[in-house]
Amino acid sequence: MHHSRPVAFVFDVQSDDIEGAARFWAGALGRTVAPPNPQHPTYRELSSASPEEPMLLVQSSVGHESRIHLDIETDDQEAEVKRLEGLGAKLLRKVKTWYVMEAPTGHRFCVVRPQRGELTDQNSNVWP
Amino acid sequence: MHHSRPVAFVFDVQSDDIEGAARFWAGALGRTVAPPNPQHPTYRELSSASPEEPMLLVQSSVGHESRIHLDIETDDQEAEVKRLEGLGAKLLRKVKTWYVMEAPTGHRFCVVRPQRGELTDQNSNVWP
Repeated sequence: MHHSRPVAFVFDVQSDDIEGAARFWAGALGRTVAPPNPQHPTYRELSSASPEEPMLLVQSSVGHESRIHLDIETDDQEAEVKRLEGLGAKLLRKVKTWYVMEAPTGHRFCVVRPQRGELTDQNSNVWP
Repeated sequence: MHHSRPVAFVFDVQSDDIEGAARFWAGALGRTVAPPNPQHPTYRELSSASPEEPMLLVQSSVGHESRIHLDIETDDQEAEVKRLEGLGAKLLRKVKTWYVMEAPTGHRFCVVRPQRGELTDQNSNVWP
């Protein structure tokens, strides 16, 4: 048994201007930019309207065109990758602590460790 | 004075297989697929985990590579487009009832009419 849920939409930005990118999206969406985490200098988090909505992140300096990707968080990454493969997704590679996958629709997405505390039967999907 | 807020993340899918695309994303995210609206046969809506979170839509048969785009809803599209231009976005074109814009980060997004009832000072951003 494991849990998963969509946890974040990430605005991947080709340029290195993380401040400008975060400022634009915060202004466009009426959010504020959280203080940077020195361990993750190319990321900024935008404030949430509600704790239930997915986090909104901005990431600069990506090695591909700008796009939005989805992160799915789970308490068992191997089981979640296998489950998603069963639905038709392909595992592309593991990077640090996350798995990069490609959906049958062509979208890239990541399977990540829990980002906002414990996943429970109440706040997440439960998979047998 | 007008209101706006992020209302939907749309999985744009290059292929024409809307059923397969909606089935994959519903399965991946633990959602159900809402019954199709005959007026919008290339769209499917996935159920929401909470009324505050952005809607998740799947759209097939797009004329570009598969990607995710954001819709911003507003009760004054002209004013919202102008506000976003002031932040550095560019208006690309108007299609039917929505405006397609490009962020300074390179992402395309749309400014749409209210999708889920009235926008208020409580549920939206208020712009002077």
